[in-house]
Amino acid sequence: MLSDIPAQTDPRILVDFRTADDAGVYAWESGPALVQTVDFFTPIVDDPFTYGQIAAANALSDVYAMGGRPVTALAIAGFPDGVLDADTIGQVFRGGFDKLREAGVALLGGHTVRDPEVKFGYAVTGAIDPDRILTNAGAKAGDVLLLTKPLGTGILGTAIKFGRAPEALAAEAVRSMTTLNAAAAGVLTRFAPAVHACTDITGFGLVGHACEMAQASGVSIAIETAAVPRLTGILDLIEHNKPGGLASNRQFFTPSVASDPGVPVVLEDLCYDPQTSGGLLISVDERTAAAVQAALAAAGVSAPIVGTVVARGQRPIALRPGPQG
Amino acid sequence: MLSDIPAQTDPRILVDFRTADDAGVYAWESGPALVQTVDFFTPIVDDPFTYGQIAAANALSDVYAMGGRPVTALAIAGFPDGVLDADTIGQVFRGGFDKLREAGVALLGGHTVRDPEVKFGYAVTGAIDPDRILTNAGAKAGDVLLLTKPLGTGILGTAIKFGRAPEALAAEAVRSMTTLNAAAAGVLTRFAPAVHACTDITGFGLVGHACEMAQASGVSIAIETAAVPRLTGILDLIEHNKPGGLASNRQFFTPSVASDPGVPVVLEDLCYDPQTSGGLLISVDERTAAAVQAALAAAGVSAPIVGTVVARGQRPIALRPGPQG
Repeated sequence: MLSDIPAQTDPRILVDFRTADDAGVYAWESGPALVQTVDFFTPIVDDPFTYGQIAAANALSDVYAMGGRPVTALAIAGFPDGVLDADTIGQVFRGGFDKLREAGVALLGGHTVRDPEVKFGYAVTGAIDPDRILTNAGAKAGDVLLLTKPLGTGILGTAIKFGRAPEALAAEAVRSMTTLNAAAAGVLTRFAPAVHACTDITGFGLVGHACEMAQASGVSIAIETAAVPRLTGILDLIEHNKPGGLASNRQFFTPSVASDPGVPVVLEDLCYDPQTSGGLLISVDERTAAAVQAALAAAGVSAPIVGTVVARGQRPIALRPGPQG
Repeated sequence: MLSDIPAQTDPRILVDFRTADDAGVYAWESGPALVQTVDFFTPIVDDPFTYGQIAAANALSDVYAMGGRPVTALAIAGFPDGVLDADTIGQVFRGGFDKLREAGVALLGGHTVRDPEVKFGYAVTGAIDPDRILTNAGAKAGDVLLLTKPLGTGILGTAIKFGRAPEALAAEAVRSMTTLNAAAAGVLTRFAPAVHACTDITGFGLVGHACEMAQASGVSIAIETAAVPRLTGILDLIEHNKPGGLASNRQFFTPSVASDPGVPVVLEDLCYDPQTSGGLLISVDERTAAAVQAALAAAGVSAPIVGTVVARGQRPIALRPGPQG
């Protein structure tokens, strides 16, 4: 939607929307730069407090993915007239505020409208060292890719909508989606020179966001599909619970993907699944990867290796069967 | 919606949503403070470029009303699937960008969703001197009140919707709504010690926003209804074009208003009319008012005196017939 906006020449714009990064960055008069992002969406779980928590964790994630520290938020909300009681709406706001507080973020205001469809989210501003901005660009051949959360929240959301989600699986997904990417981001700043690129996995799925990273970095990315972390038992749900976004991601990104015939279709599907409040995809120097993984584990973050960065080939993404294939 | 959010104790929050001010203010690590606001709404005119311009001027206005200078924006948009063509949607974005550029504001990104109802607006961040924040509080008995744009855009919007708006009137309203409050705000900073309070007139109408100023300042405000600037010929349209917000503003604020029996009902209605991209309501020391008016006029801004601040009476607002009554 922003693609035909004329180019901006303001030198204080360090990152804008043209590079498909997670957030924009603007040099403030002094001190750290601003890193800014906005995200909101319709409910994906039934519980209003949890919905608010997920919306906040998801909006804050873009700031973490750039290497920033979120500091302020403005709420963005739409609720239909007379359908939800005030307490339900209040719980959405309180769930969001719960996560803002956990992240140390100040809620400065917001805007709520009457809306036929429920919506909730935030515009978030963070502080970032302008010399240490993590973008999609920077991944280097030889890097390994870590992923900090399991895939499958899009499929799971569809299953929830149709009452087909096992309780334990839904609980696991909620735990994942309400987890801030703060701890992971904190570790990355400590390994700054070895961490070459980072993004969070959201609507475009693992393939889509990896593709943006590959394009921005001028490399190709090979994903070992069997090694990609996934919600427990999610593969059994895929066939009957494909979200619309999975099909459109597959359609849009397929020309950029070389998929090995040995990759099971369900694992391909998983890699196209649109995520909400997904994990960080981190491109890190191979020699430092084990240390980064250990530090992430010490911070409570599991981050398996899901692929490698290779020299630019014919297509930006290769899907491989991986270690179990 | 934010009223039952727990209190925030972060000393860097200089203004949050609790004081009914136009925007929140947060102390940055160094340099000026951040002033932040978010606003978006459904179309009020037919032309998509104009709609984008108005949405931008309206969102930026909250920053100007606090005495800030807007610097970055994130677009917030909702469009129904397959109803509008890409060029129409593009024009909304370009219209908004036109006003951002006029204001010297960088567009850093945005979020667009599929939405049964069209919506457009921005989250805006500005820079502000923390020692010179203009809020609703600060109006002093003896001040006079200036208003920088004519009232009537809510009524006019309803008339447009039903094809009952005279062309010249619609053109006048569009000129007003697309005019940035930047020039007016620039003058106010030059008269800083004499300008005691400021807000912009939006959804609550003149009465509602004056009421918030009176409450925050511990004073009462007398409005001379005949002196309030209005769109040319708008009074003839009121009877058949009252927006829903006019009735709800009247209902909500009536207990706070002492209305003189000599005030014509149409002028009362006008004072309750919800505005889009309305003018600044400025409470200024009486002795400096003429100089401020002259400086505003030199900057192309007409700002008649619409009332006075008086000691706190029984009700926050008095509506009087005014000089023509």
